Amino acid sequence: MKNEMWSGRFSELSDELLQKFNASLDIDKILFKEDISGSIAHARMLESCGILKKEELDDIIKGLNQIQDEIEQGEFIFDIKNEDIHMAIEKRLSEIIGAETGGKLHTARSRNDQVATDFKLFVKKSNTELIFLLKELIETIISYAKEHKMTIMPSFTHLQHAQPVSFSFYILTYAFMFMRDIRRLQNGLELADYSPLGSCACAGTSYQTDRKLSAQMLGFKDIMLNAMDGVSDRDFALDLLYNIAVIFTHTSRLCEEMILFSSSEFNFLTINDSFSTGSSIMPQKRNPDVCELIRGKTGRVYGNLVSLLTTMKALPLAYNKDMQEDKEGLFDSVKTARESLIILNAMLKKIQINKENMLQACKKGHLLATDLADYLVREKNIPFRKAHFIVGDLVAQAEKKGIDISQIEDLAQFNPIFDKEAVKLLSFENSLNSKQSEGSSSKISAEKQIQFLEQFLDSL
Amino acid sequence: MKNEMWSGRFSELSDELLQKFNASLDIDKILFKEDISGSIAHARMLESCGILKKEELDDIIKGLNQIQDEIEQGEFIFDIKNEDIHMAIEKRLSEIIGAETGGKLHTARSRNDQVATDFKLFVKKSNTELIFLLKELIETIISYAKEHKMTIMPSFTHLQHAQPVSFSFYILTYAFMFMRDIRRLQNGLELADYSPLGSCACAGTSYQTDRKLSAQMLGFKDIMLNAMDGVSDRDFALDLLYNIAVIFTHTSRLCEEMILFSSSEFNFLTINDSFSTGSSIMPQKRNPDVCELIRGKTGRVYGNLVSLLTTMKALPLAYNKDMQEDKEGLFDSVKTARESLIILNAMLKKIQINKENMLQACKKGHLLATDLADYLVREKNIPFRKAHFIVGDLVAQAEKKGIDISQIEDLAQFNPIFDKEAVKLLSFENSLNSKQSEGSSSKISAEKQIQFLEQFLDSL
Amino acid sequence: MKNEMWSGRFSELSDELLQKFNASLDIDKILFKEDISGSIAHARMLESCGILKKEELDDIIKGLNQIQDEIEQGEFIFDIKNEDIHMAIEKRLSEIIGAETGGKLHTARSRNDQVATDFKLFVKKSNTELIFLLKELIETIISYAKEHKMTIMPSFTHLQHAQPVSFSFYILTYAFMFMRDIRRLQNGLELADYSPLGSCACAGTSYQTDRKLSAQMLGFKDIMLNAMDGVSDRDFALDLLYNIAVIFTHTSRLCEEMILFSSSEFNFLTINDSFSTGSSIMPQKRNPDVCELIRGKTGRVYGNLVSLLTTMKALPLAYNKDMQEDKEGLFDSVKTARESLIILNAMLKKIQINKENMLQACKKGHLLATDLADYLVREKNIPFRKAHFIVGDLVAQAEKKGIDISQIEDLAQFNPIFDKEAVKLLSFENSLNSKQSEGSSSKISAEKQIQFLEQFLDSL
Amino acid sequence: MKNEMWSGRFSELSDELLQKFNASLDIDKILFKEDISGSIAHARMLESCGILKKEELDDIIKGLNQIQDEIEQGEFIFDIKNEDIHMAIEKRLSEIIGAETGGKLHTARSRNDQVATDFKLFVKKSNTELIFLLKELIETIISYAKEHKMTIMPSFTHLQHAQPVSFSFYILTYAFMFMRDIRRLQNGLELADYSPLGSCACAGTSYQTDRKLSAQMLGFKDIMLNAMDGVSDRDFALDLLYNIAVIFTHTSRLCEEMILFSSSEFNFLTINDSFSTGSSIMPQKRNPDVCELIRGKTGRVYGNLVSLLTTMKALPLAYNKDMQEDKEGLFDSVKTARESLIILNAMLKKIQINKENMLQACKKGHLLATDLADYLVREKNIPFRKAHFIVGDLVAQAEKKGIDISQIEDLAQFNPIFDKEAVKLLSFENSLNSKQSEGSSSKISAEKQIQFLEQFLDSL
Repeated sequence: MKNEMWSGRFSELSDELLQKFNASLDIDKILFKEDISGSIAHARMLESCGILKKEELDDIIKGLNQIQDEIEQGEFIFDIKNEDIHMAIEKRLSEIIGAETGGKLHTARSRNDQVATDFKLFVKKSNTELIFLLKELIETIISYAKEHKMTIMPSFTHLQHAQPVSFSFYILTYAFMFMRDIRRLQNGLELADYSPLGSCACAGTSYQTDRKLSAQMLGFKDIMLNAMDGVSDRDFALDLLYNIAVIFTHTSRLCEEMILFSSSEFNFLTINDSFSTGSSIMPQKRNPDVCELIRGKTGRVYGNLVSLLTTMKALPLAYNKDMQEDKEGLFDSVKTARESLIILNAMLKKIQINKENMLQACKKGHLLATDLADYLVREKNIPFRKAHFIVGDLVAQAEKKGIDISQIEDLAQFNPIFDKEAVKLLSFENSLNSKQSEGSSSKISAEKQIQFLEQFLDSL
Repeated sequence: MKNEMWSGRFSELSDELLQKFNASLDIDKILFKEDISGSIAHARMLESCGILKKEELDDIIKGLNQIQDEIEQGEFIFDIKNEDIHMAIEKRLSEIIGAETGGKLHTARSRNDQVATDFKLFVKKSNTELIFLLKELIETIISYAKEHKMTIMPSFTHLQHAQPVSFSFYILTYAFMFMRDIRRLQNGLELADYSPLGSCACAGTSYQTDRKLSAQMLGFKDIMLNAMDGVSDRDFALDLLYNIAVIFTHTSRLCEEMILFSSSEFNFLTINDSFSTGSSIMPQKRNPDVCELIRGKTGRVYGNLVSLLTTMKALPLAYNKDMQEDKEGLFDSVKTARESLIILNAMLKKIQINKENMLQACKKGHLLATDLADYLVREKNIPFRKAHFIVGDLVAQAEKKGIDISQIEDLAQFNPIFDKEAVKLLSFENSLNSKQSEGSSSKISAEKQIQFLEQFLDSL
Repeated sequence: MKNEMWSGRFSELSDELLQKFNASLDIDKILFKEDISGSIAHARMLESCGILKKEELDDIIKGLNQIQDEIEQGEFIFDIKNEDIHMAIEKRLSEIIGAETGGKLHTARSRNDQVATDFKLFVKKSNTELIFLLKELIETIISYAKEHKMTIMPSFTHLQHAQPVSFSFYILTYAFMFMRDIRRLQNGLELADYSPLGSCACAGTSYQTDRKLSAQMLGFKDIMLNAMDGVSDRDFALDLLYNIAVIFTHTSRLCEEMILFSSSEFNFLTINDSFSTGSSIMPQKRNPDVCELIRGKTGRVYGNLVSLLTTMKALPLAYNKDMQEDKEGLFDSVKTARESLIILNAMLKKIQINKENMLQACKKGHLLATDLADYLVREKNIPFRKAHFIVGDLVAQAEKKGIDISQIEDLAQFNPIFDKEAVKLLSFENSLNSKQSEGSSSKISAEKQIQFLEQFLDSL
Repeated sequence: MKNEMWSGRFSELSDELLQKFNASLDIDKILFKEDISGSIAHARMLESCGILKKEELDDIIKGLNQIQDEIEQGEFIFDIKNEDIHMAIEKRLSEIIGAETGGKLHTARSRNDQVATDFKLFVKKSNTELIFLLKELIETIISYAKEHKMTIMPSFTHLQHAQPVSFSFYILTYAFMFMRDIRRLQNGLELADYSPLGSCACAGTSYQTDRKLSAQMLGFKDIMLNAMDGVSDRDFALDLLYNIAVIFTHTSRLCEEMILFSSSEFNFLTINDSFSTGSSIMPQKRNPDVCELIRGKTGRVYGNLVSLLTTMKALPLAYNKDMQEDKEGLFDSVKTARESLIILNAMLKKIQINKENMLQACKKGHLLATDLADYLVREKNIPFRKAHFIVGDLVAQAEKKGIDISQIEDLAQFNPIFDKEAVKLLSFENSLNSKQSEGSSSKISAEKQIQFLEQFLDSL
């Protein structure tokens, strides 16, 4: 190895590098609003408990509001020397209202509980945002479900044709997945609804504070009851990371199917040009970029979950600097989920359903064979095995003629056991609607499912 | 490479290997009870809907009960040719009651929904078990917390001494973690409480069944409303895998601390001989094997979560054989969690608390410095910075004398600003109880926390 | 929660449970051969250094050979009380040859280095096995490649038709992946080729041993030079877990394509019945179970890698009981890889290539458009953009007529710029072979690739 | 849910959002140098093959050099509309030298192989950088090892005192880990040393190019022989992600020990103030922030590995947009590794070794007991068990007196079996140097290890 190539300077530690390594400002500045509202709530509580004077509170609030303006206007100078957003705001506050009053804001609080509070507020907000976006996505699915109750397509198991179903029934599957995702986020919200603010470094404080008051002002349901838990806990971040991972399990399945279904082999649907890229020379080419990206981003959100789980493993109590690593992955997963859900929803809204191709596909694979056999068992009291044998024979004859059994015109000709009633079974529509069990692919069942989902959405 | 070393046979495919590869019987036979109770509920429902005759139902139930006996007595022959536990039981049933009636059990059901139902029943049972074990663990913690409200130890941040706290306060931190784990499992239970039974292959059935009835018999709250979702969904397994991963995030932290605290350097506590291994020659040696194993098993449960997330990524609907991989990791995580919680609890019950060493450790690091500074701010109206300066000076003087500030007898001699009242602050007990904020390390706060936790446990 | 349901006994710690928790015998008994050959090499070395007498050595070897027989004959009693395979064999040895001599085998060795040695021997053996299996897989691919140099199929990017390629060229892609996998395993072997035996507990021994001698007898290239590293290192296990993970990245891609290509939509190939499951009623149905299982098992091997990475994170030196968790995942990944490669290879050998369908698929998507444009640029000196415009126009005209440009009979009629030479371009065969760049899809290139791969395999 | 809170606009898709989602420019602009040198090599090759004219080549090189200047000077406008760095540079090139010539650069190349080439060049460079940094780290360790051959400290197993070793021996353990890391990176480099440039979209080109020439100009050893592999392969990125993960397995162990050893309980060493944070009021407090951060970042690099493994799972050939997700995690892992290694090295250089405390710690735990027993076996021909019994008795007597056996002055008084020679064994120095096995903790062994490592570093 030619050392001169790298020369000393390359691996030499600069103050700047060390500062950057320790600092989290570049990452956590996204929390500025949470930090300011957290500080305002804390200050109000301190004043209410007689620890701050009214004038001091007023100054603090005025100062913090000014800082929020400065940040929103892009006038705030983020200096890495201040390490993190909390320090940066604190220092600026002292510049604006003086160090004496500014410093008092930190009474009965430490950086440990302040960070935990801000981060938890962000997590709560993100949960709510994602619930909203999933709700919109379900609405889009419902609108397709309403329109395509009788749009027939093959269902698949093992990527092999199984039974004819409606596009409505098929797409509603995803609505139920996303409904569970919403409920999971709601559960996460509920578990995160306890304020760590006022836990201080890890053991509370000798000031007589009112933690429930600041919690209430910040929209928390209650306080965390053990101060050491208050600063050591990152369950709320893990929960959101996991919930996003599951969302992507679902979106990756949906995107995989969109990619398959829009291939020239399937051609069940066409993705709108705005969500695919083409070729100047091959005008029919539509690369489903957006679907591929969302599917690919599953890796990212899985990785972010693994990261925080790894970081939290075997950490002794209470706060350790390792925990500074908790935010970047979560911010990334939230951003990824937010954008992916918005774009997926917009893309879904504009897909073109190629009904005819879906229907044609049903005519491969003798999808009605099971229906015929069930009919023989149910209506003709023929034992299961014999029924299967009869239908198997029918299929074999159709195969010889190079047709699908759905194209047989006169069943009785093949086997006299089939009466005129049976011919109806050779209609995909009838097959669909003959399904009587709850949750099946029939039109009535789809309608019930839609109704249920709409009630769920209304309850949000 | 010497090919002869491996010789043809080595990589040749045998029928046996292929059969084993396809089969899941070795893994899923653990589900035999769920499979039998699932089948009984299904049969009762079929009879209730007029699809099975009363005599057929009786035969089926009798046959299934006999099979359960055979399995429990170790008389059942698990033959890999039957691929999975569902097939193995079905085949045996036909042997016992005849293929005609035996075959009818499969009416209006397919392997896809049967597997999903059995697996979900197992997941629900495991959730409940783990809740119970966590409850017992919290009870153990509470009993320590009650005893050690005034057992003083240093708290740590960055593994550096922070403030004096009670062992009660410290150990209660973990009770709150485990409480959240219980709530997370409860949420998982609730989301899993919908029966897939009757979804059939993926689209329902033309038989007029009553899925709510079988769901109710199996203890489900309701049914899954979309049949394709019923057979494609494995969220419930992911949820449990994740919830166990978080439990191990917590137990790994606890075990890390048990290992640290039982080292000769800390010596805060002694792990009982039955949970550690010693040396014939060095009698004081106690390797904290059990703690290390539980900490090490964190890897295993994280890995199991990653496995299923990976497997489910981008799978098209509905059932794919990939999903056969869903069980082994979950069974392993459940077993790991069950055993680890039982053993951790038993181990904790027998730790010996070395109070004196904990107290001595508080005398390193001037842990009371913050208390003194807070006192100056609060009682003497001295600005924060000046208070810090005064105490910093005091610490420096103590360092010179080679003592900890807690060993100073006459504070006023050092600095006249301290009055007689201040000396009380140099007592660790007083420091502890001076904490007035909710959730702090004071005795009163610990009592409130215990009360809260006991109420929570009572509500289970 | 109804406690009585679980009743005390459920969560009570039994001696048996604790014993099982601590023990690894059920898992590590697979290492019996490695343990015995490791012990024999150690004993020979001790004798060579004058630490054991010749008679003692003879007794030890005789005893160990007897134990190996007992295990292979299924006569050995594995008693969990002996905790692990090393202890079990040691104890049995003392039974056979007496505790005095038996005990001497443990001179200048501890369980820590013994475990590391046995495990490393297993890892080395597994590496070699997998290299062999990958070699066989590449051979199968090569035999297809030789046969299908002119079997035309569309290549895909974004799952959209791209350019016509040969099946030979396409399938060779995987040969190159598996070649890299072999090289990666070779690298792993090389890094693992250093013996930890004789490192003792972590600091070596006061006996004058000859570690290089025992290393050599066990087939190691050399010894690990630092005893603490010898017992703390598990890199060799991580390397194999990772290498298997990458193998599955590749096999999962191949299996995904086998599943796609055997769907009725693509129908490029047919998987043999022995590797798929069918339906009694729908004879054409072939669920590609084996491919799905291998794809699904990707989760398992990824998870096993994550597990050990997690377990090893932040472990202090030297040996910790956490490391007992190193084996189960590795054994599972090795078994999974071994079986999957054998079965994948056997399955591949029997796929049926549906040439006609592959060719027909090329006639969708105007796959020759790029060729035409390149021709205009290259032969007619037409600027790139203009060439694209001309061909785009041609495609548009073909679209109107509802044909693919490959079906145009007289190009000049469309645009006089095309001369007679150009018509050749409309042949897929010509398109294929017109590719002149190294590594392209032409017949000549495929032949070179095959030659290169065969040389590589010969070098193994 | 109050929808108005979010109001329509929130989830509405903007063109900007879609553009950002598709674009990778913000991430991949880091590749500008690789892209430019890749393009220059490609252009030179085209000219050499007669595809470009000399004047065109000159223009292209001049233009690309100007762009590199612009980027380095901060004058280049990165416009997200250009999607990625490759497009951005290509477009700017056409602005500078005209679209006609600029466009020709893309002859016989596509974005797919261009991206793969640039990314691989970056990976190769990063490998080399990390090798260099690890080399520097080993050098630092060696300098400690040279100084502390007789600095005695306890070794640990299970975090319990094991045997006395030298700090030299202890710290050399990490040098061997990092040596393996270097070798692993070298192997990665070797596997990555094949150029994909010229693979085009996935099937090569009809131009007669010379891929070996451009490969050679870019420093590649050879070309990738299958074009489809050329654009589909991301093994090289996985390899680096894994190699970095293993590096962090090692650094996390080292940092864990630095944190433990610098706690007030251990106090074996003191971390320099510049690498720790203190407290204005507790001057002795030194939070080992840098060590905690490096340990915490283990999560990040593990997560990045999981991400790409997940993304690559089951992707059909050849290029899919999912693969755009390959870079961010790798760039992050490389940056994290680079900075962590620089800072860890700088921190290590300045730690203060507290020899006296290390030595005192040896006097807890009767660390010499094993030495005494070995002595009895070796020199007095006493059977192992009896020797253990004798020493166990000695330890028990010492315990009663409240002393460590190392503090016994007259062994013979305790048991006449010990002669004067034996007293020497009670010296830690003698214990250390009595180790005669290769790789042990003796001074001679440490010297050999240092020599070996220095030779290894020289060979780089």
